[in-house]
Amino acid sequence: MDEINYHDYLQLDKILNAQATESNKQNISAHDETLFIIIHQTYELWFKQLHHEADSIVEIMRKPSLNDNSPEVQTVVHRLNRMATILRVLIHQIDVLETMTPMDFLDFRDMLRPASGFQSWQFKMLEAKLGLKFEYRHGKEYYTSQLRTEHIDLIKKAETEQSFLQLVNIWLERMPFGPSPTTLRNVQDGAKARSREEGKSQAAKTEKDFFSAQNNAEIVWDFWNDYKKAYTNSLAEAEKDNLNVFDEVFFQQRESHYTFSAKANRAALFIMLYRGYPMLQAPFQLLNNLLEIDEQLSTWRHRHMNMVHRMIGTRIGTGGSSGKDYLKAAADKHYIFKEIAQLTSFLIERRKLPQLPKKIEEKLGFAGPGPLK
Amino acid sequence: MDEINYHDYLQLDKILNAQATESNKQNISAHDETLFIIIHQTYELWFKQLHHEADSIVEIMRKPSLNDNSPEVQTVVHRLNRMATILRVLIHQIDVLETMTPMDFLDFRDMLRPASGFQSWQFKMLEAKLGLKFEYRHGKEYYTSQLRTEHIDLIKKAETEQSFLQLVNIWLERMPFGPSPTTLRNVQDGAKARSREEGKSQAAKTEKDFFSAQNNAEIVWDFWNDYKKAYTNSLAEAEKDNLNVFDEVFFQQRESHYTFSAKANRAALFIMLYRGYPMLQAPFQLLNNLLEIDEQLSTWRHRHMNMVHRMIGTRIGTGGSSGKDYLKAAADKHYIFKEIAQLTSFLIERRKLPQLPKKIEEKLGFAGPGPLK
Amino acid sequence: MDEINYHDYLQLDKILNAQATESNKQNISAHDETLFIIIHQTYELWFKQLHHEADSIVEIMRKPSLNDNSPEVQTVVHRLNRMATILRVLIHQIDVLETMTPMDFLDFRDMLRPASGFQSWQFKMLEAKLGLKFEYRHGKEYYTSQLRTEHIDLIKKAETEQSFLQLVNIWLERMPFGPSPTTLRNVQDGAKARSREEGKSQAAKTEKDFFSAQNNAEIVWDFWNDYKKAYTNSLAEAEKDNLNVFDEVFFQQRESHYTFSAKANRAALFIMLYRGYPMLQAPFQLLNNLLEIDEQLSTWRHRHMNMVHRMIGTRIGTGGSSGKDYLKAAADKHYIFKEIAQLTSFLIERRKLPQLPKKIEEKLGFAGPGPLK
Amino acid sequence: MDEINYHDYLQLDKILNAQATESNKQNISAHDETLFIIIHQTYELWFKQLHHEADSIVEIMRKPSLNDNSPEVQTVVHRLNRMATILRVLIHQIDVLETMTPMDFLDFRDMLRPASGFQSWQFKMLEAKLGLKFEYRHGKEYYTSQLRTEHIDLIKKAETEQSFLQLVNIWLERMPFGPSPTTLRNVQDGAKARSREEGKSQAAKTEKDFFSAQNNAEIVWDFWNDYKKAYTNSLAEAEKDNLNVFDEVFFQQRESHYTFSAKANRAALFIMLYRGYPMLQAPFQLLNNLLEIDEQLSTWRHRHMNMVHRMIGTRIGTGGSSGKDYLKAAADKHYIFKEIAQLTSFLIERRKLPQLPKKIEEKLGFAGPGPLK
Repeated sequence: MDEINYHDYLQLDKILNAQATESNKQNISAHDETLFIIIHQTYELWFKQLHHEADSIVEIMRKPSLNDNSPEVQTVVHRLNRMATILRVLIHQIDVLETMTPMDFLDFRDMLRPASGFQSWQFKMLEAKLGLKFEYRHGKEYYTSQLRTEHIDLIKKAETEQSFLQLVNIWLERMPFGPSPTTLRNVQDGAKARSREEGKSQAAKTEKDFFSAQNNAEIVWDFWNDYKKAYTNSLAEAEKDNLNVFDEVFFQQRESHYTFSAKANRAALFIMLYRGYPMLQAPFQLLNNLLEIDEQLSTWRHRHMNMVHRMIGTRIGTGGSSGKDYLKAAADKHYIFKEIAQLTSFLIERRKLPQLPKKIEEKLGFAGPGPLK
Repeated sequence: MDEINYHDYLQLDKILNAQATESNKQNISAHDETLFIIIHQTYELWFKQLHHEADSIVEIMRKPSLNDNSPEVQTVVHRLNRMATILRVLIHQIDVLETMTPMDFLDFRDMLRPASGFQSWQFKMLEAKLGLKFEYRHGKEYYTSQLRTEHIDLIKKAETEQSFLQLVNIWLERMPFGPSPTTLRNVQDGAKARSREEGKSQAAKTEKDFFSAQNNAEIVWDFWNDYKKAYTNSLAEAEKDNLNVFDEVFFQQRESHYTFSAKANRAALFIMLYRGYPMLQAPFQLLNNLLEIDEQLSTWRHRHMNMVHRMIGTRIGTGGSSGKDYLKAAADKHYIFKEIAQLTSFLIERRKLPQLPKKIEEKLGFAGPGPLK
Repeated sequence: MDEINYHDYLQLDKILNAQATESNKQNISAHDETLFIIIHQTYELWFKQLHHEADSIVEIMRKPSLNDNSPEVQTVVHRLNRMATILRVLIHQIDVLETMTPMDFLDFRDMLRPASGFQSWQFKMLEAKLGLKFEYRHGKEYYTSQLRTEHIDLIKKAETEQSFLQLVNIWLERMPFGPSPTTLRNVQDGAKARSREEGKSQAAKTEKDFFSAQNNAEIVWDFWNDYKKAYTNSLAEAEKDNLNVFDEVFFQQRESHYTFSAKANRAALFIMLYRGYPMLQAPFQLLNNLLEIDEQLSTWRHRHMNMVHRMIGTRIGTGGSSGKDYLKAAADKHYIFKEIAQLTSFLIERRKLPQLPKKIEEKLGFAGPGPLK
Repeated sequence: MDEINYHDYLQLDKILNAQATESNKQNISAHDETLFIIIHQTYELWFKQLHHEADSIVEIMRKPSLNDNSPEVQTVVHRLNRMATILRVLIHQIDVLETMTPMDFLDFRDMLRPASGFQSWQFKMLEAKLGLKFEYRHGKEYYTSQLRTEHIDLIKKAETEQSFLQLVNIWLERMPFGPSPTTLRNVQDGAKARSREEGKSQAAKTEKDFFSAQNNAEIVWDFWNDYKKAYTNSLAEAEKDNLNVFDEVFFQQRESHYTFSAKANRAALFIMLYRGYPMLQAPFQLLNNLLEIDEQLSTWRHRHMNMVHRMIGTRIGTGGSSGKDYLKAAADKHYIFKEIAQLTSFLIERRKLPQLPKKIEEKLGFAGPGPLK
């Protein structure tokens, strides 16, 4: 086997010879065009890395038999954490681009038309892979209008495949913390009943303990009934309307534009509430890391928008649809994991949480401590 | 003189004994309340420091005889840079607050009502001092609704005094780069004429060289005429409407809700265009640092909004006016220095800039190099 | 109950009135002294927060019955992570201090003598609490020479109490992954034997499976024997000496200046190797977070040293013992968790790891998945 | 002219197809090798950008007629600032690499031998270009031992050409703030005399005002004599030895291993002391940015060392010369701009600075304000 050389291993002959400036071709002096090229190349390299991580966690989550006892969930958590760390570097890089003043950018900006936008198919495909649906994109088709056909196809393909968010939904639904379908129907009846006979707690009676669906006679427990009571008590007068949203989120068949089912929402909330139990730790970190990624993406979009505004003002696309306006609308809209974020509204104080039955507590713990100690 | 002791000098007996948690008073366990108090205290200490810097630069800019040959403008630049550096730390600190999960916050959140918002009079007063006018605040009076009278008075006072932005306007107006009032009138006539007789360049004839107003017969130069021509040529077909905005920004008496006069805008643009000349370097840095501060403030507001959303969802003020909505509207609106930012739209390529006459170039240079060398 | 007011709750009357500059007292102009005071106050506030976290995790780790099935280990992990996050902000703050140029510092530096060093008893006490022993401090007594008696006492007390590092040692020793004492003796004999009869693998025979010490006849397994073989195979020729260190670290009674026993080292290595198993995830994160904290502390000391050097050069204490030299020596020496860091040297490739017996694997997993699904 | 396409312009077909993992070739699973490749590629891209900036400022500084009235010095300042900004991103990137745990690295580490070090010829060449001399490199030839001949040649060439530091020395020497050679000789005599007849201030008499060398009879002023007196007064008893260093640094022909001449040191100190004057602002920023770059490089080396230690412990090169030891020694030694940093030791308080004569003050100011106002 040949010895490996750092320069060859990294294919630096390719990497370091991929910066051909337009200004050079046109024999015009524009010192900062090299920076413009190189920083975008680093962005694209990092996007490739983000895809490498995203693909790997999609693959793990796709396994029908994803095993909580394997390192797999932990691996997903770890890689999501890495993705957030990379996104922080990408945000930081904007500082470098901002050392290019508007006048410096003008030296070569017109030479790049129409390429001067941010037309990264990798980034758009990443959004799709994580869970941003086409119908929720600001500007719809606009975002692919200047891409090569082969790259549009890649994005479209990613949009039709199961996104990471959809896989998370399935994974959550598989968790044993939601009521069985029959119970669910009763709950829905109860929800309707509640609106008729407020205060009579009719709902309570119809809500069967979801664990009882496990055919475990010893554990009969109306968890969601108890929880809804506690949640109701926690609401201020002005917040009473939240109860309807509560029912909608956790007990009803939601409209198609939501990715998470009521069952998945219940599992996610349960994880947030009881994250202290060993079995829920990694799942909690997984959900939390998704929020972290969404926040970093949001900051990235926001800083990108501000940077573009500072760099080119309102000049491009003068007709009201300036670069900044498009970026702002996209930034406001493209929260990929907002369905997870909104669950925060339905938490209650830890000291008012329903106490889990002993039998269930045990199941959420480790097998080991007993015999091994 | 007594020896100075680190602990006493920093008054740590005060500082380190100012954390009394409500949870402790109510004998409830809430580990993270200490973090909540301490992080807000560090924010307030930094706000005090920002006021210290802001007051000092307001004082410098207020001098009618602010001398370009003194270190004063440089000092303003330096302190603005420090303020931006501090703001970066404040943004970074949000990372720490985000280690507090929603459930951890719920442990003590209700004990703080109605204080649980972000009611920093120092921050609001800082915005006012820098240049955010009351009438442009989102929610108007709302932002002072929970403050002590003495602090409301401080903010109101700051709102009536000359803001830093207003002082920058005056400083820019004082600069010798704009035409005299008589010339200005002609230019406005010319602007009107232009719209009547497009292409005849009537405006050119009436635009007297602004430097000629200096009674310097040798320098008669139609700078703004030349520049407008160059700018016109730089516009794409779809951008032609920008010309009207150009006239409005640089030659007309603008509506009262703008802080910068046309004269100040001309000086600011001139500085951006010819920042390479020694005399314009510090002024350019000053303007650039204001944009940097606005961007950091914007990022701060944005991350603060996201953090609040992640922490409490949509619970508080359920009636549509959640904490997040208020913060978002304020973040979208409160760009203090946007009048400077918009000037970017009127820049042109460096290689198409009108060449400055030798005599003017000399005046923008140093006195020294000649005889000292 | 009284309504809570933001300003009062944060005790801002205290906090914002604790900045009395010496320059003001002496009627000398020194604009940056306020920054000097305020930044140190923010440091001390954050140190107080670090103590709040450190105290809480020391308390948890002190429990003789620390339960792996409770959220407690996870809480320790989370708070260590927060400490690292805070340290990152503290490092970032140096950027702000560096906006003070040497000439700006000179405006007031001499007024502070002899307080001008960095005499934070909170920081020194924090080091002690985490595990820095007095005898390993650079300069020994020097670091307390200018402190108040009451604060020296606090540090000394922290030095005599069980440090977090010592508690981690005890916690690791309690873990069921090391051989029993009898086995250990045999191993030591084996180690001696090995050096006599190299290659005969006499050691292997005497190393009883540590799990067999659990009176579990089904699991008889020479884990450490297998591992040492695998490790030996992984060593390059020039690294063969590492084997002696291996024996010393994992099987011998180490000199008193080490905090970790051989038993604790074995448990820590086992955790690093098999971190994928659910029961080892939180312990792995705990160890990893300690390395992260050490690294942040190291960066903090390093940047602090560079900053002092840039600010005052070699002036103070001209006689060879400049501020910088002291800080450098301390930075080089004060790695609190280096005993954990060094274990990295003894890892081997994952694909060469001894496969854990089924029975043990099960014990490292969750109780739940079976019956609950 | 063809339309420009984002993907083609950035040559992404090259960039995104340059990641061939060894683990893949050997059909072994090593998820993190892709990260390892990509992060190093981004480092190398940034190094290329740093060279782009370094080359441009070397070119500017090489001009014999570098004009203080042109934007050139300002451009150098700006690009140094950009380099520091890039270095901050490079440091930040280490956070990403640290998400790769030691066990993850072991998955592919052995496949890379002997390339597993950090053998970036671009980085070494950059150090040389900035001013790190070969004879001050830790380990001398070692650093080139695994490079391709063509890259070694590039580094060697950079080492023989004038470094940026040498160009700064020449630029400083050209500044009109030092005494003429004749005066200098007298000063040296005076320095010797001083040690013989302490207190008689013989030196003072022989030190001719350096400005008088400009044949400007009106300005006869013993600046350095005055300054030495003020500096002497500022020294504490224990610091008196500093005076000898003062003479050595500012008035003697220094040993060959220093890059800065006494004359350059005088100019640099003068700039630091009187940075408030317009003509000295950009030069001050230039010197300050060099210190900033050195500090960022130092932090980079330090964090790199810690990261390597955390990743591989002491395994590689077990015989005492571990990777960490080499990196640590290099980090301690390779301060490229330390001759500038040490000048801080010779500053005095601003309020004790010798007042500059009116005539000189004028020369340090702008030409413009008079007639233009």
